[in-house]
Amino acid sequence: MERIVATYYIETPFAPEKAAAVLAGEQSSGTFVAVPGETEELKQRFAAKVEEVTFLETVSEPAIPGASSATGQYHRALVKVSWSIENFGYNLPVMISTLQGNLYEIRQFTGLKLLDIQLPASFADHYKGPAFGIEGCRKLTQVYNRPLIGTIIKPSIGLTPEQTAETVKILAEAGIDFVKDDELMSSSANSPFEKRVDAIMDVINRHADKTGKKVMYAFNISGEIDEMMRRYEKILASGGTCAMLSINSVGIAGVKKITDQRALAIHGHRNGWGMLTRHPLLGIEFTAYQKLWRLAGVDQLHVNGIQNKFWESDDSVTTSIKACLEPMFGGYELLPVVSSGQWGGQAPETYRRTQTVDLLYMAGGGIMAHPSGAAAGVVALQQAWQAAVHGLSVEQAAAIYPEFKQSVEKFG
Amino acid sequence: MERIVATYYIETPFAPEKAAAVLAGEQSSGTFVAVPGETEELKQRFAAKVEEVTFLETVSEPAIPGASSATGQYHRALVKVSWSIENFGYNLPVMISTLQGNLYEIRQFTGLKLLDIQLPASFADHYKGPAFGIEGCRKLTQVYNRPLIGTIIKPSIGLTPEQTAETVKILAEAGIDFVKDDELMSSSANSPFEKRVDAIMDVINRHADKTGKKVMYAFNISGEIDEMMRRYEKILASGGTCAMLSINSVGIAGVKKITDQRALAIHGHRNGWGMLTRHPLLGIEFTAYQKLWRLAGVDQLHVNGIQNKFWESDDSVTTSIKACLEPMFGGYELLPVVSSGQWGGQAPETYRRTQTVDLLYMAGGGIMAHPSGAAAGVVALQQAWQAAVHGLSVEQAAAIYPEFKQSVEKFG
Repeated sequence: MERIVATYYIETPFAPEKAAAVLAGEQSSGTFVAVPGETEELKQRFAAKVEEVTFLETVSEPAIPGASSATGQYHRALVKVSWSIENFGYNLPVMISTLQGNLYEIRQFTGLKLLDIQLPASFADHYKGPAFGIEGCRKLTQVYNRPLIGTIIKPSIGLTPEQTAETVKILAEAGIDFVKDDELMSSSANSPFEKRVDAIMDVINRHADKTGKKVMYAFNISGEIDEMMRRYEKILASGGTCAMLSINSVGIAGVKKITDQRALAIHGHRNGWGMLTRHPLLGIEFTAYQKLWRLAGVDQLHVNGIQNKFWESDDSVTTSIKACLEPMFGGYELLPVVSSGQWGGQAPETYRRTQTVDLLYMAGGGIMAHPSGAAAGVVALQQAWQAAVHGLSVEQAAAIYPEFKQSVEKFG
Repeated sequence: MERIVATYYIETPFAPEKAAAVLAGEQSSGTFVAVPGETEELKQRFAAKVEEVTFLETVSEPAIPGASSATGQYHRALVKVSWSIENFGYNLPVMISTLQGNLYEIRQFTGLKLLDIQLPASFADHYKGPAFGIEGCRKLTQVYNRPLIGTIIKPSIGLTPEQTAETVKILAEAGIDFVKDDELMSSSANSPFEKRVDAIMDVINRHADKTGKKVMYAFNISGEIDEMMRRYEKILASGGTCAMLSINSVGIAGVKKITDQRALAIHGHRNGWGMLTRHPLLGIEFTAYQKLWRLAGVDQLHVNGIQNKFWESDDSVTTSIKACLEPMFGGYELLPVVSSGQWGGQAPETYRRTQTVDLLYMAGGGIMAHPSGAAAGVVALQQAWQAAVHGLSVEQAAAIYPEFKQSVEKFG
């Protein structure tokens, strides 16, 4: 019978093997006392199994305060645990409850992080994965052999539909590939959703009629199910190609309901992610996280950016980009969305680390606040990526490209 | 204009006022450079406002590793920030993205926890809240003036529908008020959901016909939207009164879609909660969390239990129970679900701390593994609560009640 395998990074005052056994018991047939009906055969079939325990190190302070060790020692280890597919079948919420449920509360742990998940091949028959992915997003935007260049409407919130559309017009004429709502913006007092779609799609459709290039706009439809469905239909009926979801805020059942429509590319915004991963020994790593959202059918997923304005290290961002590009079941391509404080200067380092142009490369202020205006901001980003792929440094690129040079002078 | 106020516990290497201003900027109109269009008027209307900063203490080690302070000092403070209702209207996912989005990633913080939320009165017009709550759950079970006594089917996973129904029969005859699926159990290879509902509701309906008492069974319908809806209908058509949702795993949009049906009481299981709250300076406190789920219409919510088998302190559990019982908009009553390692011995201390019987008091092994069987286990729990309300200690109760005495001998 096929099994799902989860890898955890744990810290425990107990022997790691013992703590791992508690985890496996809690997350399958176990309770705190033996109960009638729990036969050996039953246990064999449905019990979680500890597959592997790799001791790493012993430390003298617990990663998460609150628990204490009689010996003053806390042991760190990698632990692999597996479950039979018979336990929950193909049910993402119940799989999440199994892999990430009560186990974070077990007092045998002073730290626990889900690092990775291995899923059996039959998942590919039950989950269609991203409807568009990298190839589909390229086709919709007609951008090949370079990253999609995108931007976020700023200020995040406050512009009217007309002001937003005016900005989109400038960006479209400047050759932008992708524009998105901010995650704080869905329907505000002075920018109701439907009016914003009308105003923006009017600009985008006209531009497409004239030039053949349709800018992809990710409208933030995050909300309740029926409202998300209505807004999805509104985008589709208006000729739009993309909807944005704040995946943590909506939740996986809601996201899956939307991706199942398979008519718009889904831009997955991971805001709230810091809470789930920022502590090194609590929560979930991006490697595991992005697999769940690929199963849920998200096409584009945020990965932060090199030299970002947030807490995340460049190594971690690099790992995340590579995780998205790693095929799952031989496909399920997921377009990494690089953002946060990006202005083009990070392109050479991003390319050096990842050797890929399969990115949606987002700059907010980096485009809109370019000294010569948004149009020059888009050009500067395209130049930055040309330079990056040719192995040029920021300084070398600035010597060749005037718009990029202005970026360096302002943001560098 | 009405405002939503959030209270955060923060830690920062910077002046707390400065860090709070960064938070407010990031979560409203801000970006890393000034952009055209961001007028003073716009800022006034949509900007998040720092309402209050209360300095607490300075420490020399950051709560979350990774960030560093030039001075080696990290300042802790309580911060209140507010947003106009105009920013997102009545949209739970976008409100969550605003209150709990990118702010956890801001490098100005070495710790950040959302403690509480104050919501404007108009929310009560837009969110109906729990369809049943405490009063409705009492009415459905016909239990008054004492906690509802409940149990969890154990082993968590592995029993057939017939074995489960047989257990439910024993429990019903013993006078149990409530039974639930484990969160790991929804539809397994040897217990398909529909068959389990048929077998269990047959027992429950027969028992109700005979005695007039209908046991509330919380079937775990956690899954994708359409499947949850089908299973909800199945429960309803079979005469059931309750469905269970793993609220973190399903997500708030999915949960709201289900509670909107308003025909079954919704048992909210918070598995995964440890990840969101276990670190004292990361994530969200239960006080804020339970308000979100009341808005989403959950009727019953897990709060852990006194002297539980998990990491949580009794003080924290007490605070959680009180939070659920605190009226919201003058109502929105939420039934606290007390569980984890409970066997009746914790009843006196639970009552002493909370002075309430408005609880769903759950015991798993504590009932099923009672020395004289499950029926005696139920009786022992009822005795424990009688004793608790009369101010008796565990020892005094054991001297009076024989079934409870057996519990003490086995689990005490």
